[in-house]
Amino acid sequence: MLTSLRFHGPQPAAELAAQVSLSRSKIGQELLRLQELGFVERAGKAESRGGRRSGLVQLSRGLRFLGVDIGATSLDVGITDGRLELVARAAEAIDIEDGPEIVLGRAVELIDKLRADGLLARVDGVGVGLPGPVSFRDGFTVSPPIMPGWDRYPVREFFMQQLDCPVLVDNDVNLMAVGEMYCGLARSVRDFLFVKIGTGIGCGIVTAHRVMRGSSGSAGDIGHIAVQETGPVCSCGRSGCLEAWFSGAALSRDATALARSGESPELHRLLGDRAVLTAEDVGIAMRSGDPQALGLVRDGGRRLGRVLAGLVNFFNPAMIIVGGGVARLGHPLLAEVRAELYRRSTPLATSSLPIVLSELGEHAGVVGAAGMAGDHVLGVQPAS
Amino acid sequence: MLTSLRFHGPQPAAELAAQVSLSRSKIGQELLRLQELGFVERAGKAESRGGRRSGLVQLSRGLRFLGVDIGATSLDVGITDGRLELVARAAEAIDIEDGPEIVLGRAVELIDKLRADGLLARVDGVGVGLPGPVSFRDGFTVSPPIMPGWDRYPVREFFMQQLDCPVLVDNDVNLMAVGEMYCGLARSVRDFLFVKIGTGIGCGIVTAHRVMRGSSGSAGDIGHIAVQETGPVCSCGRSGCLEAWFSGAALSRDATALARSGESPELHRLLGDRAVLTAEDVGIAMRSGDPQALGLVRDGGRRLGRVLAGLVNFFNPAMIIVGGGVARLGHPLLAEVRAELYRRSTPLATSSLPIVLSELGEHAGVVGAAGMAGDHVLGVQPAS
Repeated sequence: MLTSLRFHGPQPAAELAAQVSLSRSKIGQELLRLQELGFVERAGKAESRGGRRSGLVQLSRGLRFLGVDIGATSLDVGITDGRLELVARAAEAIDIEDGPEIVLGRAVELIDKLRADGLLARVDGVGVGLPGPVSFRDGFTVSPPIMPGWDRYPVREFFMQQLDCPVLVDNDVNLMAVGEMYCGLARSVRDFLFVKIGTGIGCGIVTAHRVMRGSSGSAGDIGHIAVQETGPVCSCGRSGCLEAWFSGAALSRDATALARSGESPELHRLLGDRAVLTAEDVGIAMRSGDPQALGLVRDGGRRLGRVLAGLVNFFNPAMIIVGGGVARLGHPLLAEVRAELYRRSTPLATSSLPIVLSELGEHAGVVGAAGMAGDHVLGVQPAS
Repeated sequence: MLTSLRFHGPQPAAELAAQVSLSRSKIGQELLRLQELGFVERAGKAESRGGRRSGLVQLSRGLRFLGVDIGATSLDVGITDGRLELVARAAEAIDIEDGPEIVLGRAVELIDKLRADGLLARVDGVGVGLPGPVSFRDGFTVSPPIMPGWDRYPVREFFMQQLDCPVLVDNDVNLMAVGEMYCGLARSVRDFLFVKIGTGIGCGIVTAHRVMRGSSGSAGDIGHIAVQETGPVCSCGRSGCLEAWFSGAALSRDATALARSGESPELHRLLGDRAVLTAEDVGIAMRSGDPQALGLVRDGGRRLGRVLAGLVNFFNPAMIIVGGGVARLGHPLLAEVRAELYRRSTPLATSSLPIVLSELGEHAGVVGAAGMAGDHVLGVQPAS
């Protein structure tokens, strides 16, 4: 019943009763029990009229789930109610390489500030996203390539001690996929991919409404798929990986080189006396008509598209959602990805395959983290 | 209960009772009902002693499921009992391009022959595998690239009329994966890939013990993943596809060219006055030490390994099983695949990843087809 409310939103009690094959009186008892637990509430006008007709039932607005989305360079904290509507949010820049003590300390400061502002009187569950391979069962990262000091650091225990409630830890991209599944563009599909292009590249895989983590929790690690036999050296030590060709870090490297060499006067102007350019700068130069910047985006989109074309042949998803900071490059990037996909995938797999930008944008991670925590606390089981 | 018997084999009634939380008397009633339906039977010595102690319970040896595995060049028919043990088998060479009337007619002849021999007194369910994309729901192929005349031909209805029992139709590779899941090397794993190298290349994907067919039924179509930007022209019209580089058809093409040009005296000798060589000939030449033949196998294994490396990063399977006729090239092929996988996949995904040859070999398809039909008839639902 809670699962139906999660997937289909507010519903009349009679409809819920029909779904779970319960009699009118039994469903009344069950709803009363869930209301007393604070899990569901009545909503809509019908309630105020009284009488036999029941109003809508929905997941409670009084619940509070906390989503903590830790990226390589950003920390986002969000609070949702039971329906996963954001009620408060705070963010700041971090450096994941500062290690868990400093980064998690900053997260606690942000949470304390939300609490001091009266925005977090209770916490029913916490979801935490980390930018590396996570052992979901253990609640920590395992051999993350870009996170010195984080290997097996007990992130779940840390938040459980701080907040005294259930805590789930997952890869940040998996949580973004959950966010899109419940509150974004993927509400209507069973199987989809969420591709995050940030400092690196990762992919959340949802099949039959469930996140697929793989046999050792590393599923979706598409940033290290080889695009060509040779190529730029990657953070993983190999050459030719997708994210060594195209990612926030790769764009920063290539744009800075184009600025320094003077090949792009526009990027040179943007660089000024800064040490490096960012993916955002590439976007600015591209939109002002700089051909070198547009070339970087097109080359990157083509390489991403080539990798996705293979994954579409293999996985045959119903939708691909592209998110993360670099996705703000927008439609010139998507156009290249689409062209390559349609060129290289089988017609059966692409005939009705939307490739879209994330609807939730920078909120996808915290909403998904809150959603996963909410599922755990409420006992929501995705239908399959 | 039937699901547990399918996955775990014969068990004492008491263990089954514990699994489904039924009392001793209730489980007795349920077993009696299933025995009367002919779905389960008692097995083991305990039965003959009588008294209170129950013997083992197993899926019935009296059931008969028919598996029909139609490949591009071969037709295999197998009969199993309820436990999926093969009780009879027949095979012959066909050409899928002869079209459905001729090929399905040959299948019926084979089945009639088994019946005449007294091997098929009853049929409880039929599973049919086809070497192309199949709409599982509709029971026919959709836009198959190598099967003229088969597009939307009502294969399920054909066999239902012939045999008057439930019929399921699926892609042949999916059925091979089911065979390995129930009776082969994948019994112990939840997520694995079955890679078939025959005339073309395809992949069966199992996650949480279920075959994943994708949103339009084309999941696992890895033969058309691009290995390089350019390359040999493929049957799909594009260039550089994996199966245009390496498959039964590609080996035949390349070996024949090496024989004709005289670059390989051994292949030249094997060709004699035949029109073309086969993948089997490549194996013969390789085992007799021909460096050109070994080179073909190594190059092919490397290209297959490169594609699988990407899929391992994406899907993180617990096992990869390699089957199909070309898999008989054996360990020189696997060695190249493994080397490329370990070189190009992330350590977390390959640290405990067996890459093995199919245990069921040429029987995988018919056993899987019978298994899928059996699941449908008995109502077995893979646990997730």
